[in-house]
Amino acid sequence: MYKALVYVTLKPSILDPQGNAVQVGLNSLGFDNVKDVRIGKYLEVTLEAEDKASALAQTEEMCKKLLANPVIENYRFDLMEV
Amino acid sequence: MYKALVYVTLKPSILDPQGNAVQVGLNSLGFDNVKDVRIGKYLEVTLEAEDKASALAQTEEMCKKLLANPVIENYRFDLMEV
Repeated sequence: MYKALVYVTLKPSILDPQGNAVQVGLNSLGFDNVKDVRIGKYLEVTLEAEDKASALAQTEEMCKKLLANPVIENYRFDLMEV
Repeated sequence: MYKALVYVTLKPSILDPQGNAVQVGLNSLGFDNVKDVRIGKYLEVTLEAEDKASALAQTEEMCKKLLANPVIENYRFDLMEV
């Protein structure tokens, strides 16, 4: 069994209204030194695979097909055996 | 300037319907070997601070006050100088 830790982030050129809202919230809580907030998704995917190479290839395909929108998002992932 | 990479995850005992929906989606796309999906948030917070200790303390406070709901979520973060 493998666990893939997938990080999906908006591309730098894409506006992030959710992140801006959190920044304004932090600022108004007194954290005036917060200059930027960007929000992404973090997924833990547990999968069965014969070996690490196969798990890698499958996770890559899942990211492309469902987990990330490649038009506006970047993704990266770490894989660990569990 | 420091950048805090914050990972907010649901506690293991908390149900994750969004994760379940993604798992069903992956299964029906042919990824039958996916056994579990848990979804969390990933935040990149850019802040000004005098030193690393101060940035650490402030990020910890932000997580407790706004970024995570400590009743149902866990959080962890990495800090890097930028």
